[in-house]
Amino acid sequence: MTDRKTRWRRVIFATDTQAGHRFDLALILVILASVLAAMLDSVESLHQQYGRLFYLLEWGFTLLFTLEYAVRLWVSEHRRAYAFSFYGLVDLLSILPTYLSLLFPGTHYLLTIRALRLLRIFRVMKLAKFMGEASQLTQALVRTRRKIAVFMFSVLVVIIIFGSLMYVIEGPQNGFTSIPRSIYWAIVTITTVGYGDISPQTPLGQLIASLAMMTGYGIIAVPTGIVTAEISVARTRWNREKSCSACHCDDHDADARYCKRCGAELLTPSE
Amino acid sequence: MTDRKTRWRRVIFATDTQAGHRFDLALILVILASVLAAMLDSVESLHQQYGRLFYLLEWGFTLLFTLEYAVRLWVSEHRRAYAFSFYGLVDLLSILPTYLSLLFPGTHYLLTIRALRLLRIFRVMKLAKFMGEASQLTQALVRTRRKIAVFMFSVLVVIIIFGSLMYVIEGPQNGFTSIPRSIYWAIVTITTVGYGDISPQTPLGQLIASLAMMTGYGIIAVPTGIVTAEISVARTRWNREKSCSACHCDDHDADARYCKRCGAELLTPSE
Amino acid sequence: MTDRKTRWRRVIFATDTQAGHRFDLALILVILASVLAAMLDSVESLHQQYGRLFYLLEWGFTLLFTLEYAVRLWVSEHRRAYAFSFYGLVDLLSILPTYLSLLFPGTHYLLTIRALRLLRIFRVMKLAKFMGEASQLTQALVRTRRKIAVFMFSVLVVIIIFGSLMYVIEGPQNGFTSIPRSIYWAIVTITTVGYGDISPQTPLGQLIASLAMMTGYGIIAVPTGIVTAEISVARTRWNREKSCSACHCDDHDADARYCKRCGAELLTPSE
Amino acid sequence: MTDRKTRWRRVIFATDTQAGHRFDLALILVILASVLAAMLDSVESLHQQYGRLFYLLEWGFTLLFTLEYAVRLWVSEHRRAYAFSFYGLVDLLSILPTYLSLLFPGTHYLLTIRALRLLRIFRVMKLAKFMGEASQLTQALVRTRRKIAVFMFSVLVVIIIFGSLMYVIEGPQNGFTSIPRSIYWAIVTITTVGYGDISPQTPLGQLIASLAMMTGYGIIAVPTGIVTAEISVARTRWNREKSCSACHCDDHDADARYCKRCGAELLTPSE
Repeated sequence: MTDRKTRWRRVIFATDTQAGHRFDLALILVILASVLAAMLDSVESLHQQYGRLFYLLEWGFTLLFTLEYAVRLWVSEHRRAYAFSFYGLVDLLSILPTYLSLLFPGTHYLLTIRALRLLRIFRVMKLAKFMGEASQLTQALVRTRRKIAVFMFSVLVVIIIFGSLMYVIEGPQNGFTSIPRSIYWAIVTITTVGYGDISPQTPLGQLIASLAMMTGYGIIAVPTGIVTAEISVARTRWNREKSCSACHCDDHDADARYCKRCGAELLTPSE
Repeated sequence: MTDRKTRWRRVIFATDTQAGHRFDLALILVILASVLAAMLDSVESLHQQYGRLFYLLEWGFTLLFTLEYAVRLWVSEHRRAYAFSFYGLVDLLSILPTYLSLLFPGTHYLLTIRALRLLRIFRVMKLAKFMGEASQLTQALVRTRRKIAVFMFSVLVVIIIFGSLMYVIEGPQNGFTSIPRSIYWAIVTITTVGYGDISPQTPLGQLIASLAMMTGYGIIAVPTGIVTAEISVARTRWNREKSCSACHCDDHDADARYCKRCGAELLTPSE
Repeated sequence: MTDRKTRWRRVIFATDTQAGHRFDLALILVILASVLAAMLDSVESLHQQYGRLFYLLEWGFTLLFTLEYAVRLWVSEHRRAYAFSFYGLVDLLSILPTYLSLLFPGTHYLLTIRALRLLRIFRVMKLAKFMGEASQLTQALVRTRRKIAVFMFSVLVVIIIFGSLMYVIEGPQNGFTSIPRSIYWAIVTITTVGYGDISPQTPLGQLIASLAMMTGYGIIAVPTGIVTAEISVARTRWNREKSCSACHCDDHDADARYCKRCGAELLTPSE
Repeated sequence: MTDRKTRWRRVIFATDTQAGHRFDLALILVILASVLAAMLDSVESLHQQYGRLFYLLEWGFTLLFTLEYAVRLWVSEHRRAYAFSFYGLVDLLSILPTYLSLLFPGTHYLLTIRALRLLRIFRVMKLAKFMGEASQLTQALVRTRRKIAVFMFSVLVVIIIFGSLMYVIEGPQNGFTSIPRSIYWAIVTITTVGYGDISPQTPLGQLIASLAMMTGYGIIAVPTGIVTAEISVARTRWNREKSCSACHCDDHDADARYCKRCGAELLTPSE
């Protein structure tokens, strides 16, 4: 019994066996198909023609994923840990909308949250390389979280002030019907999206808007600068992991091929 | 008497005591509530239903903040310095709009300038870390002020020329009713916001507009480059402040854990 | 016979002879003319006046390019290699649309794919310098392909989720008529393009849209950081190729003029 | 006579005397006033009220600048060099539109080209610092000109292809009335400006447009990376100009305070 459980665990959670690799590949194809079905079902003309088929498909996929979720829970050694991990929560959220749609019609379109499950794809592809790059990126982003938080909070304060200023200047007659809506406009402007659904009409409003645009255009440099500096450091650190197998010194340049202390050839990590 | 003043000063201006920490936390919650009230009051439907409540809340908050401002002035050692500091001015501006609204109706929406007071939040949160990151960022931005000024001024000259060129080419019949308005269009275009409230109609105008867009798209690289270079340097400098307590040498790499000269362990500054 | 073939090959494929240089220059002018003709032919007023001329020109250029393609195939040593190379395929695609337009009218506007042939221009201009810069850039981009792929895939998943969320919230009555169309909106928003052809109308939709914009505004930092770090490295590496002709060490700084080991003067590569 | 010429030359072209400094300051104020007058004249309501005043002001400024140009030509040692220098041409272009407007009405709004003369402002402000920063920036940009050219040309080719593809797919009935206009749309899209005056209507067109947006969003990283790498290098080089006055070695780190060879204190250049 336990033996079978261990075997299943290797197939479902690991990718180092051929069976595990095939399982992950099949899973991703099924996820893709289910996301695509939910998307196409939302197109009016297709819904009218194939609505019944999509309905059956949706329940089929949901039952399949429910079964998979149950098996995952059953085989995992640390059930709580899996259930509350990122992928565990995503797996649960991927099946809930269909059941919820029995109570609240329309929510089943949230099924596309299944797309998050596609992130497993990095595990299926040539593992070491992509996971390495992904973790390098994630590391750099995690390390900048505080700087980015300081930046985002300051920008939000600036946005609130620009928004309420424009509400006072332009007023409801020019589309700025409330401060929350003006703040929405300020976000659209400072992020340089610029829908144009609300735009300033008075000369003073256009002057303030110009200042908001210049601000948004200029401060994009800040998060970029923060992240770039971190990625540069992460990239260097990564290369430093080329450690010499002879003398164990690990402070080599990015383009070093021989240990600078003892001259032994360096084992290059997969780049 | 003076003793009580000192005690109050520690509570209001410092955050190293529990009372001071609690005071700041409470203050931020009250500020948030007052900003939220001003925002919601501007929504027409809410204003009609709860207008009276919002009016009372606004005066309540304003009197509270006026009291706080008075106490701050009373307890601070250097009154002039506080009154003309960034936070001192913000504290004053946060109470003025309500009094002004007695004379000029509508200005009380400027109360959202209180949002600026929220920047105190960095002081309440885990101090050392966030303040460190914030000051690192501020330092880097201060050091780039001259380069950014040169850049912004040059961009402004380019914008004026593009704007008046388009006024001559497109003319009032296509929405470019005056040079100031055309300059507004040029800012909307070069910052890549692109509302679309004014857009070129003639082929020649579209050609010039294309040039303006390419310019805006290309030169965003300049402030980004400036800030990134500074942040990289600031980051390095910060790490260099890891100085060895044994031999006082302070030229260590970002990832050094031991002094490279004497091998003593380095005290890592909170990152 | 073979002799003539070799001579032709040098003229057509190489640029180190005067004849080869002239041939490439003439070719680029003819390509430019043919692209321009296809463009102008699409303008309704010009088509009505000069339609016949454009038709003749198009067939003239196509026959000329067909002849050129045949000669290239004839003279090249490795015919398969040329036919399946990037430029070989572009050369073929540049003549197909005209022939196809006999079967499917309208497709001949795809002739502008000939613009891709213009990339040969880098070969004609001062060779070493531009090719060096271009290959430096290409190298850096190739080396970041995996990081960019990880980033783009993650962004796509985020876009799908934002898109279907907005479909559920805003619904068909506000322009979000299907999930694919909502995903199109999400792409327009997250890339900060912001046409405004579809824009959120409900307060909740505007809140979610604001989050999408902030996301798009913030994560632009990631590809920029990745590419910047790579270009910095590529730039350093390039400079390192200054190798000393005396002791063959090649680890010199960007501004080194003498070998740091033996003091011999360094041959600077054209920058 | 020559003596007077030399004195005038120092006043007009140099800024190291008090008279020269004052002259430049006065000049900039007059330029600002003249640009402002041209701008305000273009506002319909102001033109109707003060049209006569603006007309007189314009001729006044033009005659003044003509006189200044004549004096500059008269006093300069190398007349041809001045006349064909950047500022010489700008000075000429700043007076031509008024005279041209006698022949072609409307062209006098091009007077705002005078704004270019405002770039002289960097000379008036604390000289060394701003000129240093400006020249550092200019240097970095000049050094990247070839990489940027390669990038811009490649982007242009991509834009032409996206444009003609959309012309074939969407066609005149959806606003893509000709290939040049479709190329204008492609530029609006790839630079992420997104006016929304032309936007794809068919599903296939929206798919292609999405690809164009992702392209534009992604490749902004390239010029940013190029410029950032150059500015980093320029910044380092600048710091390297800290040369030791004792042993004349000039290869010091950015944060060096003592010469690393002889230990003499370094003279820090104004940062």
